[in-house]
Amino acid sequence: MAEVKLIGAWGSPFCFRIEVALKLKGVEYEFIDHDVHNKKSPLLLKYNPVHKKFPVLVHNGKPICESLVILEYIDETWEKGPSLLPKDPYERAMVRFWAKLLDEKCLPALRKACLSRGEEQDKAKEESTEILKFLEGTLSGKKFFGGDNIGMVDIVANFISYWFIIGQELAGLQVLTKEKFPKLDEWMDEYLNTTIIKENLPPKDKLTAMFKARFEAAAAAGGGGGGGGRGGAPK
Amino acid sequence: MAEVKLIGAWGSPFCFRIEVALKLKGVEYEFIDHDVHNKKSPLLLKYNPVHKKFPVLVHNGKPICESLVILEYIDETWEKGPSLLPKDPYERAMVRFWAKLLDEKCLPALRKACLSRGEEQDKAKEESTEILKFLEGTLSGKKFFGGDNIGMVDIVANFISYWFIIGQELAGLQVLTKEKFPKLDEWMDEYLNTTIIKENLPPKDKLTAMFKARFEAAAAAGGGGGGGGRGGAPK
Repeated sequence: MAEVKLIGAWGSPFCFRIEVALKLKGVEYEFIDHDVHNKKSPLLLKYNPVHKKFPVLVHNGKPICESLVILEYIDETWEKGPSLLPKDPYERAMVRFWAKLLDEKCLPALRKACLSRGEEQDKAKEESTEILKFLEGTLSGKKFFGGDNIGMVDIVANFISYWFIIGQELAGLQVLTKEKFPKLDEWMDEYLNTTIIKENLPPKDKLTAMFKARFEAAAAAGGGGGGGGRGGAPK
Repeated sequence: MAEVKLIGAWGSPFCFRIEVALKLKGVEYEFIDHDVHNKKSPLLLKYNPVHKKFPVLVHNGKPICESLVILEYIDETWEKGPSLLPKDPYERAMVRFWAKLLDEKCLPALRKACLSRGEEQDKAKEESTEILKFLEGTLSGKKFFGGDNIGMVDIVANFISYWFIIGQELAGLQVLTKEKFPKLDEWMDEYLNTTIIKENLPPKDKLTAMFKARFEAAAAAGGGGGGGGRGGAPK
């Protein structure tokens, strides 16, 4: 068995987080692309019986689950290479705070803005805008959320720079624009043009096709957007 | 201004987490008891404009929000005294995994089991049981989740040992019993009888009265339990 395996699903922003971190650290790994809809897969039942979700990082046979947990594990295990978290306890706390906010507040709001309709969508757009304003504020005077280099918050926020931009285009939204969020726009540009990101992002056309199918399924299900867009998505 | 201030609300298991951690570390602090329902409080707007929730730890004038983030901050800032997280990266990842699970899965399920009715309650009881089984499994051969001593998972799980037990009694549930979960039962006993915990827990009668009022409000609102029990609760 290879030392480091990443069990994930193609096109998942959660799995991409782990790939970026491993590549930044220069860690060799094997990517096992798994059917995201197979909740009874022996691999999942073996490595993540609690959540039955991807990504799972398997290091020397030991599984680590939940992308935020995996990112900190990678930073602590492969100390050489660029740090994903700063050294200062207060700055570390800020990184954890924003990473948590991105997953717990920002991502659900952006997803709902894309997948819901009517009043629910208006509310989600408003909530998304409010959260993006906070993010815009933290970028003041900085190239990346991590400062001069990509850090954990940048990696966690990758769903904004690529996945959401595709989603908002498909949904015909104008939530995140250069005019409304100039700093976030600059950040997206810097992030997406970083060699390691640019060379490894899933191709836009293939991702767009996947999203389109998801959007249609959500619309067919009533456009609630509650969890429709998740569709067994990894975490 | 005192060096360490904890802005919180009486009776909150989230604030109690921080109190336990500070006391274990021997850190002197001032507790500022805040009206949990006042979302426009200048203190909240100043220190936690994003979530507008407690607890907030203010250290040398700098605020840290979100109880899991605060616990790691305390462990990294006051390195002397007992460690809340182990040193080994894999064990640290496991602590973060369980802490996250407790907040994101276990707590909502237990709350719903107490506050909902009918089919929704049956489903919540089933989900609670499934999660508690995983927790029971991790206690195998250990006194505390942290091993021989109280660690971060024990502190995060405090809502099970005291708050939920009161809630399940009021709701007439038998979800967490000695017969079904002997290891969790032993753990609760050990945890609640640890001097630092025993001496600082909010009095049971006062907490019961607070819960009773909340249960009645939830029942009046239809017993949905979706978020009724939260009632602007801190995090």
